[in-house]
Amino acid sequence: MNTLKLQKTFELLKNNSPLVHHITNYVTAHICADVTLAIGGSPIMADAIEEIDEIVSISNSLVINIGTLNKRTVDSMIQAGIKANELNIPVILDPVGAGATKFRYETTKKLLDLIQFSVIKGNLAEIKTIAGLSAKSKGVDSIDDDSSKDIIAKELSNKLGCVIAITGQEDIISDGNTTILLQNGVSNLGTITGTGCMSASLIGSFLGTNSCPLSSTTLAILSMCIGGEIASKKLNSHHGTNSFKTFLIDAISQMDFDTINREMKLVYV
Amino acid sequence: MNTLKLQKTFELLKNNSPLVHHITNYVTAHICADVTLAIGGSPIMADAIEEIDEIVSISNSLVINIGTLNKRTVDSMIQAGIKANELNIPVILDPVGAGATKFRYETTKKLLDLIQFSVIKGNLAEIKTIAGLSAKSKGVDSIDDDSSKDIIAKELSNKLGCVIAITGQEDIISDGNTTILLQNGVSNLGTITGTGCMSASLIGSFLGTNSCPLSSTTLAILSMCIGGEIASKKLNSHHGTNSFKTFLIDAISQMDFDTINREMKLVYV
Amino acid sequence: MNTLKLQKTFELLKNNSPLVHHITNYVTAHICADVTLAIGGSPIMADAIEEIDEIVSISNSLVINIGTLNKRTVDSMIQAGIKANELNIPVILDPVGAGATKFRYETTKKLLDLIQFSVIKGNLAEIKTIAGLSAKSKGVDSIDDDSSKDIIAKELSNKLGCVIAITGQEDIISDGNTTILLQNGVSNLGTITGTGCMSASLIGSFLGTNSCPLSSTTLAILSMCIGGEIASKKLNSHHGTNSFKTFLIDAISQMDFDTINREMKLVYV
Repeated sequence: MNTLKLQKTFELLKNNSPLVHHITNYVTAHICADVTLAIGGSPIMADAIEEIDEIVSISNSLVINIGTLNKRTVDSMIQAGIKANELNIPVILDPVGAGATKFRYETTKKLLDLIQFSVIKGNLAEIKTIAGLSAKSKGVDSIDDDSSKDIIAKELSNKLGCVIAITGQEDIISDGNTTILLQNGVSNLGTITGTGCMSASLIGSFLGTNSCPLSSTTLAILSMCIGGEIASKKLNSHHGTNSFKTFLIDAISQMDFDTINREMKLVYV
Repeated sequence: MNTLKLQKTFELLKNNSPLVHHITNYVTAHICADVTLAIGGSPIMADAIEEIDEIVSISNSLVINIGTLNKRTVDSMIQAGIKANELNIPVILDPVGAGATKFRYETTKKLLDLIQFSVIKGNLAEIKTIAGLSAKSKGVDSIDDDSSKDIIAKELSNKLGCVIAITGQEDIISDGNTTILLQNGVSNLGTITGTGCMSASLIGSFLGTNSCPLSSTTLAILSMCIGGEIASKKLNSHHGTNSFKTFLIDAISQMDFDTINREMKLVYV
Repeated sequence: MNTLKLQKTFELLKNNSPLVHHITNYVTAHICADVTLAIGGSPIMADAIEEIDEIVSISNSLVINIGTLNKRTVDSMIQAGIKANELNIPVILDPVGAGATKFRYETTKKLLDLIQFSVIKGNLAEIKTIAGLSAKSKGVDSIDDDSSKDIIAKELSNKLGCVIAITGQEDIISDGNTTILLQNGVSNLGTITGTGCMSASLIGSFLGTNSCPLSSTTLAILSMCIGGEIASKKLNSHHGTNSFKTFLIDAISQMDFDTINREMKLVYV
């Protein structure tokens, strides 16, 4: 991870305010819009199939999140992704609960079959579901379910030709060649709604300047995790989870590259 | 209300993080998810009929809120409730504006006809609508509209075989045998959006450990009302309604049973 | 702008808590409900066509916002607007991204053809789209696209018979006779999601007492802009965008007419 490249990616976002199109769930849409603004992007949420091609065409990246999917919005996700691929607009997938129901499983399968993603970000269960799916639907060798997280990320990245991010207590990011482990973050991030969805919005923001997917994803996860660390340091015994949320968005809106560079705990694996 | 039973119900939630499925409105979905996390539950919002049976099956309780109902989500509410009944998963109804339109009235009627609820929580107007409905649709004697709130709650509880909570300046909760009056709460709770919806999420959280509906509902309403009291004490002349909201969620996330036990104003009626 | 008239409009809202019906997007619905409460109104969000006539009938004003429109909700918007016109309930249009896609363009055209609005509020691009549309669809002379903002607002106001508000760094409001320029506001308002949508909710709140559309719109924009000024003064180097949002809603919930009267920078143009 070249520091100068990370810095350039960070500054490109701050200087360009890319339009980040979201087809996402109604639970976290508001805070995803807020965090996109906080990091320097410009959010747009729109999911009507009648306008999806035009919205994609004016956007700089597309975030697809299946958190509260339904038949109508799934159709829009597919059409948006295909259009974005045509126009070389990067697409991020947040496969929320991909393995939890047949509908999510089948939707994720369709999305993977029809759309080339730049980044797929999920927790371990979601990424394993995708690994299983791509083994089946693409006729490739299955990824061993017992592999360590870094192996899963690396192999899946090579198979799908996109960056894979596995979020958790530690985060793994791989583009197939380089695989890194991020050791930032705090447990408070699990006490509020939407940190996962927001991470996808941050990836979409950095990717919106056509920066490299690995650098973009790394900066996004670092912004969330270091933001969480800064926020948790502000907490005293009077504060609860909503104050943490306020401090988190505050910290992300004030994030500069020096802070990221100083605080990041990045290990090559 | 046995203190030890309340305490056990409180601790069960804290130790088990039950999955609370919501089919709810898009206005308060985010803060309902946040308050569910704050009290110790784990929220899931999903309303596509294609997956509703599977989501119910992995959940520990189901909250149905008709705040921004539409034809698609009503179908999902009904199917989810029926499935939850089959699996003995407790179901909570928040009949927002049940009497305001024919669509809400008919939807509430269908829900009552087809689903056995564990708890129904509403304001006086909503509960009176349900009392009228059940009189008509179940062929039972009508509940006198002029009865005092505690009589309405008790009689309706017996008719529907579920706990009835009537929220207001004071709150009434009855399981047909025991009827209690809670005198906690502050007027600030009316200055922000979603305290009613959040109360249903809190009930769903406590019920998600298969605790008794009366204890669960009592603890939920107490958590909201005492949380409001704690939040209002933090307010000074610089603070407005959004600070109150932050303090409220903060207080709920820090609530312990000792605080509830010390502060609760509970009267048997 | 008669100060006594403004003051009376302000006090009418505080004393009457009008019901403000929103058919709006799922991104800002929550904060629009919160700001409606903060200024003294009572929000209701409902968009099912099955109940739209009844909801309109019990409301004091109707806010239509096309931010995340879809076929289902557009039908409800049209029916709601027609019903509101029948009942003389004032209707506000927030034509979010009116020119961005054909679907938004055609929807805006239908809304303008079928509904008499009391106030249309948008940024310059949105209002120019509407000026172009009304030139085409109403067979009237086109408004010169290069005209200054105040001329556009005044001419469009006369053509459509409603108040036009063009928001931006400075805000223009015209009822065709009187055209005013508001010079309040701070750049922080652009760093959070929903200030535009919230402004429409504030207009809906003031209009909900049947006050004059020009006074109502002026007070709404002033409440947002002066609220932003008050909030920005509370910011120190530890605060980011989410603290600003909290301070903004706080300030709006504490706004009194003396503050507005003292702080407003209003120029007749």
